[in-house]
Amino acid sequence: MFLYIVDLLGTAIFAVSGVSMAFRLKMDAVGVLVLASVVAIGGGTIRDIVLDVPVFWLTDNNYIWVVIATCILMIVFTKKPTRLPWYILPVSDAFGLAFFAIMGAEKALHYGFSPTVAVLMGTLTGCGGGAIRDVLAGQIPFIFQKEIYASACIMGATVYCLLDYSHLPRFVNVLVGIAVVLAIRLTAIKWQLSLPTFSKD
Amino acid sequence: MFLYIVDLLGTAIFAVSGVSMAFRLKMDAVGVLVLASVVAIGGGTIRDIVLDVPVFWLTDNNYIWVVIATCILMIVFTKKPTRLPWYILPVSDAFGLAFFAIMGAEKALHYGFSPTVAVLMGTLTGCGGGAIRDVLAGQIPFIFQKEIYASACIMGATVYCLLDYSHLPRFVNVLVGIAVVLAIRLTAIKWQLSLPTFSKD
Amino acid sequence: MFLYIVDLLGTAIFAVSGVSMAFRLKMDAVGVLVLASVVAIGGGTIRDIVLDVPVFWLTDNNYIWVVIATCILMIVFTKKPTRLPWYILPVSDAFGLAFFAIMGAEKALHYGFSPTVAVLMGTLTGCGGGAIRDVLAGQIPFIFQKEIYASACIMGATVYCLLDYSHLPRFVNVLVGIAVVLAIRLTAIKWQLSLPTFSKD
Repeated sequence: MFLYIVDLLGTAIFAVSGVSMAFRLKMDAVGVLVLASVVAIGGGTIRDIVLDVPVFWLTDNNYIWVVIATCILMIVFTKKPTRLPWYILPVSDAFGLAFFAIMGAEKALHYGFSPTVAVLMGTLTGCGGGAIRDVLAGQIPFIFQKEIYASACIMGATVYCLLDYSHLPRFVNVLVGIAVVLAIRLTAIKWQLSLPTFSKD
Repeated sequence: MFLYIVDLLGTAIFAVSGVSMAFRLKMDAVGVLVLASVVAIGGGTIRDIVLDVPVFWLTDNNYIWVVIATCILMIVFTKKPTRLPWYILPVSDAFGLAFFAIMGAEKALHYGFSPTVAVLMGTLTGCGGGAIRDVLAGQIPFIFQKEIYASACIMGATVYCLLDYSHLPRFVNVLVGIAVVLAIRLTAIKWQLSLPTFSKD
Repeated sequence: MFLYIVDLLGTAIFAVSGVSMAFRLKMDAVGVLVLASVVAIGGGTIRDIVLDVPVFWLTDNNYIWVVIATCILMIVFTKKPTRLPWYILPVSDAFGLAFFAIMGAEKALHYGFSPTVAVLMGTLTGCGGGAIRDVLAGQIPFIFQKEIYASACIMGATVYCLLDYSHLPRFVNVLVGIAVVLAIRLTAIKWQLSLPTFSKD
């Protein structure tokens, strides 16, 4: 139940990021809906297809309704997103990233895959939707840009997988994993931290 | 049998649209074949993968042969597509869209998924191939542009799902669904109708 | 065992091509890892998802470790790739292409699919990873450019499927198939051969 709410919350948060991108690209209502869906359920869909487990929103349509409701609320109540403080979007995106990365790793472990696969799946779930969004919008995906993003997923998911060997209750592990991703990502946003890049040619 | 012919027809029509795009991008014979395949079988492939049912062209290679035959015919017989009246392409694309949207919804219902999922799958089958085509060609997918496109799929598939509760024979429902998509899409083409866009930032 | 080594070797070779692209785009360590993974395991992942067989790297994590090791070696030991002779990259890419195209066709035949599907799967496995790499990097995929590339996969995989009807031991068929792809691709590189393109409009 706790995990389910975290998952729906992450879906709504990521849908917000899709709607914002659609507004910026001046899309119509259907474009808004499609882009929000892609960001909110795209990463998890790829994860489930690769793991060959039932795609999560096929059996539980609540995820779809959360996305649709988010789109309607955003269209009705948003006047000018630029009036919002600038940090709302990256910070909410960081929360979505943290929720999805840990839920992705959790699902892979749950189905008996190795921790290596779980870390990959956490990263894929966290970053996948955003990567498809950027490709559809004709941009080089954000994960390839400089700021620490995928690395936060990798580290948080690794911590979560290590904690899984302990005897702590699962919701504690989930909260710690989420906190790790959030801490790294928010620190990176605040001080604009980046990993060094290679320009060897 | 009726549904099967509609499906092969939609495949050929969409292959034509892929070949036209490949001609415009000055691709060679293999590029033509790849792009035609992507448009013609891409949307249905994603649908089957998401639903976790066998991908339709794996067991029935006729779909592949239809695409190959369409490419050969187009290469041999087309001299100058620009000599064709301008409306041939959008109109044939509208037919392919209508066929695929309803067949996609039909398949999801057939496998016991909810109408919500069926409408999504109809939209995905209708618009998916074209979206991949545009991404591969380095363009922002057509569905995100202004004209009514995905909305026609959504409305046609919704009508089809509602009719499914009636006791009408299935081919009637299919024809009505196709007619709805066609009517909306052709009207949008003729009068260049669009949904209002949002430019809130 | 022989096939397994060929497969791991192809993975390492394609990872090198992903790392080189990431260097050119000035990515950080995580970007390098993601792009190398996409090229090295992307094509085979799509193949396994379409065939609905378990994705190869889920159960055998060696593939992931080969990619990670290749990235680390490249980052540590590469000073200036431009100092390498220019033909290193296209030639190693040709080897990866040949290995993957034949292994892809082999896997499809092994699971009992038709030769038509096997040729498609060989082409998908050989060219898929590179196509995703180019889309993520914001470029029109290499397979749509002029030089003979996908055609080499199609011809090599076709030869392999024909040989499969003979009573030769399988590793002979694999070597012949690889040789066909390599011969065509290396010839095309050396004399910059291309198929004629169509520019009919």
